[in-house]
Amino acid sequence: MSTSKPSVLIIGLGLIGASFGKALKATESARVLGADQQVEVPKIALDSGVIDEVVDQFSNLEQVDVIVLAVPVKAIGAVLKQIKHLIPRAKVLTDVGSVKGAVVKQVEAELGAIPSCFVPGHPIAGAEKSGVKAANPHLFEKHLHILTPLEQSSADAIALISKLWTAVGADVVTMPVDRHDEVLAATSHLPHLLAFSLVDTLARESDNREIFRYAAGGFRDFTRIAASDPTMWHDVFLTNQDATLKILRKFQSDLALLEQAIESSDGDVLKTVFHRSKSARDYFTQVLEQRENGVAFSAITDYTP
Amino acid sequence: MSTSKPSVLIIGLGLIGASFGKALKATESARVLGADQQVEVPKIALDSGVIDEVVDQFSNLEQVDVIVLAVPVKAIGAVLKQIKHLIPRAKVLTDVGSVKGAVVKQVEAELGAIPSCFVPGHPIAGAEKSGVKAANPHLFEKHLHILTPLEQSSADAIALISKLWTAVGADVVTMPVDRHDEVLAATSHLPHLLAFSLVDTLARESDNREIFRYAAGGFRDFTRIAASDPTMWHDVFLTNQDATLKILRKFQSDLALLEQAIESSDGDVLKTVFHRSKSARDYFTQVLEQRENGVAFSAITDYTP
Repeated sequence: MSTSKPSVLIIGLGLIGASFGKALKATESARVLGADQQVEVPKIALDSGVIDEVVDQFSNLEQVDVIVLAVPVKAIGAVLKQIKHLIPRAKVLTDVGSVKGAVVKQVEAELGAIPSCFVPGHPIAGAEKSGVKAANPHLFEKHLHILTPLEQSSADAIALISKLWTAVGADVVTMPVDRHDEVLAATSHLPHLLAFSLVDTLARESDNREIFRYAAGGFRDFTRIAASDPTMWHDVFLTNQDATLKILRKFQSDLALLEQAIESSDGDVLKTVFHRSKSARDYFTQVLEQRENGVAFSAITDYTP
Repeated sequence: MSTSKPSVLIIGLGLIGASFGKALKATESARVLGADQQVEVPKIALDSGVIDEVVDQFSNLEQVDVIVLAVPVKAIGAVLKQIKHLIPRAKVLTDVGSVKGAVVKQVEAELGAIPSCFVPGHPIAGAEKSGVKAANPHLFEKHLHILTPLEQSSADAIALISKLWTAVGADVVTMPVDRHDEVLAATSHLPHLLAFSLVDTLARESDNREIFRYAAGGFRDFTRIAASDPTMWHDVFLTNQDATLKILRKFQSDLALLEQAIESSDGDVLKTVFHRSKSARDYFTQVLEQRENGVAFSAITDYTP
């Protein structure tokens, strides 16, 4: 194994791609090359310590060690067409998409087969702001990075990409592709859908002025979630349809029970749900505290409702 | 007008009642008397600077200037029965409930008529923790306090209670009772219902372990909302049924449109909703910033979707 730093090409310098680049540079873990569809972005990235080198034309490049696809999920196929020549000599091909099944499908469709360097990935981190200027080298510290290695993924590829995410402070875990898409549909995609939907419902009320002016704590948390990038989320819902619809329908049916309970003044149903929810929340707080205190992921106690 | 401090009796020393007491004492705005159904609570309040004096028996009291009902909305009728003798000599009778129509009804039912000292109120402030030990004298600073004066409310009563909330840092505004209940149903009651419901739906998933362990940002914000006191929220939904059901049904119908858009891969619908939602959120961020910077409430620009 060479002791020289690997070269990492990050394609897409939005919040996640740019933060990863900045963190790799800050920890001296890699030499970072960067490309973006918007011509002005790589220049900003270079000037702000996100990358070491701008890539204007992929055809000018002969070889890189690690390729990170940090574009919206539906754009991955188009990017793959442009970088096909780099894949045979790459040690790792990875991505940072919120949906993994759809990424695997695009790689298979575009390359004909899954290359052994391909290890899909998803950092569980984000921020209210998006874009290269929001790049934060500490974004991944103490946050999970989920890898969903495939049958074809080589042990070397898994080891190298794990090493790089660990170097920027992430807690690397692995999970099957389908399970990832189900867990994320429940914990991230559905909450975002509800937040976007609620904020839009209220904004369209004819007399929304007071709603915004007098908005209380609950609404504030919802608007924070709804601040995320619309295009990214559009892609998420269209590429994780099945898992999202499945959990959305469970939610709708549970919410209809609460609606009925309110309508029929059934206080017992409301109390039961609210208490169960609060106890789940208390467990979740413990998990977060344990993780803050550096408790290993596998050592966290299970939840029983 | 006397220059001596008014006496304020706070009944119910939970988060809101205790924080108001502590803030009134800290700003030397009142002499604070406190009572609570749980016998150990007033003692804790006395020891931690929340109140000046414990009230064990309302029958021992002859006169107080201001009575603050800081109990869950459905408990107000029962409390009124015990303090009837104090109301004729009080300058102010107020409350801090999240629903105003139901409080007015209980006062009317219990006292036969609305006394001129009665000015319903609702501080738009809260915290993740509840109870006397979570008392925070800064809780109301830069937060709204909504008063919903009635026809019968005297100008003196309105002036005195406004003065006390202003003294603890709140921005006092007035609104009709019905409008308050509609605005709060939209901005607070519905978001809380969705949060309780989602956390419960996910906790009841057979394989919830990974859902909690891998929970992403979106879910975290929901669990924060679901941390609120179950009994208080039970009362809110049962006493603000009409307004809550009305906005809940609008939300359900809008959510069903998003469900259909995901199912039929209609990206345009998703993008439109997400962009509109993000633009509403951007407006809301401005409102919050203006308020942080001390811009007068009435000077905040309107929102046009």
